[in-house]
Amino acid sequence: MAVKAEVNQLKDGDKKGLVDSVETFIFDCDGVIWKGDSLIEGVPETIAMLREMGKRLIFVTNNSTKSRAGYLKKFLGLGLEITAEEVFSSSFAAAAYLESVNFPKDKKVYVVGEVGILEELDGVGIQYLGGEADGDKKVTLSPGQLMEHDPDVAAVVVGFDRNVNYYKIQYATLCIRENPGCQFIATNTDAVTHLTDAQEWAGNGSMVGAIKGSTKREPTVVGKPAPFMLDYIANKFDIRKDQICMVGDRLDTDILFGKDGGLRTLLVLSGVTDEATLKSPENEIHPDYYTSKLADLLTIKASVNA
Amino acid sequence: MAVKAEVNQLKDGDKKGLVDSVETFIFDCDGVIWKGDSLIEGVPETIAMLREMGKRLIFVTNNSTKSRAGYLKKFLGLGLEITAEEVFSSSFAAAAYLESVNFPKDKKVYVVGEVGILEELDGVGIQYLGGEADGDKKVTLSPGQLMEHDPDVAAVVVGFDRNVNYYKIQYATLCIRENPGCQFIATNTDAVTHLTDAQEWAGNGSMVGAIKGSTKREPTVVGKPAPFMLDYIANKFDIRKDQICMVGDRLDTDILFGKDGGLRTLLVLSGVTDEATLKSPENEIHPDYYTSKLADLLTIKASVNA
Repeated sequence: MAVKAEVNQLKDGDKKGLVDSVETFIFDCDGVIWKGDSLIEGVPETIAMLREMGKRLIFVTNNSTKSRAGYLKKFLGLGLEITAEEVFSSSFAAAAYLESVNFPKDKKVYVVGEVGILEELDGVGIQYLGGEADGDKKVTLSPGQLMEHDPDVAAVVVGFDRNVNYYKIQYATLCIRENPGCQFIATNTDAVTHLTDAQEWAGNGSMVGAIKGSTKREPTVVGKPAPFMLDYIANKFDIRKDQICMVGDRLDTDILFGKDGGLRTLLVLSGVTDEATLKSPENEIHPDYYTSKLADLLTIKASVNA
Repeated sequence: MAVKAEVNQLKDGDKKGLVDSVETFIFDCDGVIWKGDSLIEGVPETIAMLREMGKRLIFVTNNSTKSRAGYLKKFLGLGLEITAEEVFSSSFAAAAYLESVNFPKDKKVYVVGEVGILEELDGVGIQYLGGEADGDKKVTLSPGQLMEHDPDVAAVVVGFDRNVNYYKIQYATLCIRENPGCQFIATNTDAVTHLTDAQEWAGNGSMVGAIKGSTKREPTVVGKPAPFMLDYIANKFDIRKDQICMVGDRLDTDILFGKDGGLRTLLVLSGVTDEATLKSPENEIHPDYYTSKLADLLTIKASVNA
């Protein structure tokens, strides 16, 4: 029998206590900061208020199609003043993970994924193959033919890829099967992604599933809800995890990521999760608090100024 | 602790007893009858001998890229005289499965797969979309765009597909997510396939993995080692399962399929499994007998004629 869920709606009286108890906010982007290409109401004001209160702000996203630089452009284009150091995408996490394990500079990465991963690998000076360059390749066969592959590929990174094809799947699985010690790294395993707001689109769970389905290997996941990004951030900024509040719209990535990491957690209902799903007996992931949108925190300002 | 494996090599003295004890042989094709485009030594003579002894012969393959008619051409091209009724491919099994559940004639199937599945669906008069027709489609996006999908799609069939792409993955997952009751059928979940003999190629496990990774649904598998084809064959020919001998080269599909179904089992080492793998303590799938190749049975003829 499931225990009845304790789910606390964030009340005005809780807000200052929550904000005062942490020094850092980690925000998921899609469904918290923006939906597709539109800012969510009240976000710039809330972010400005938290900055004035001296909070460190960090923006994380499982989307690997853009690099940190690509995301920075999106933030600035929406009128949000942030810096590249405040953005952590799963494309960056893949490159940071390879650096953290001292990936040899004479080895290469095979990429199933889009430009964000390639830009981040360039940023840390790691050689790569695949990605966009293999988007139009086909496998045409004659008897006895084999696909040559580079024996220097020592890691396969799999991120969301609109141009996934059999050539890339075979190249990636060949490297994992035949190159001794070749790593298999997934930016995330999200079932769906929001290419547009109009419907759910198959996410990187599909690309990772294609590689798992042939290699029978489990990937090292660097995006949410795996702990790599959180450990990296806590270490880089020397922050205690209990002084971080994770704000997100997804229970099984954002809130799980926060709870597994020992963070405070705040679910916002401005993205994919509705109140019924949160309170359903099937849901076992319970944030510390939930509220309709990030801007609900703004009433702190009113009470401080009053 | 694993129990030490009992693995019996087929000796001359066992052969006649094994053959006499069954009325039907089910042969896997690749690695038993042929390798790629070459017949394995002694196969025509062995098949002729078994026919002379009055045995029923059935040829099964998990490969869905050809239809029964397509396989018949391959058999005849290699000089093996068989009939279409003796061939069971996983493409046929997908169509037979849909017939067995009375798939409505006003509903449609979305196909991730090659021509074999399309031909078999034509054969049973089931409407379909996808397959080869969607092989070159791309997803190009503008804000707010959605991919339209046919609400009459009531099943997605996933088979090996050299032209798998994001369009097909999204279409298939949309149907499974959004069309109530839509079935998800896999011809097989083989990790690798032998497009050519030169190397292992990612198999339908990749295509099925891509759909599972987004839908989080498990497919109904109609090929080996799932029981559907065996039940269909036993029912169609009214054969007792203990009077069937399954001959195959793969432990985790052919021999498992036979053992799960209560058949006699004979592993041949002319395909992907070697003696070391068979006898390894990690292997828990033990055939009744193993032998180097199908033609080893020919010594029965010598002893009968002697």
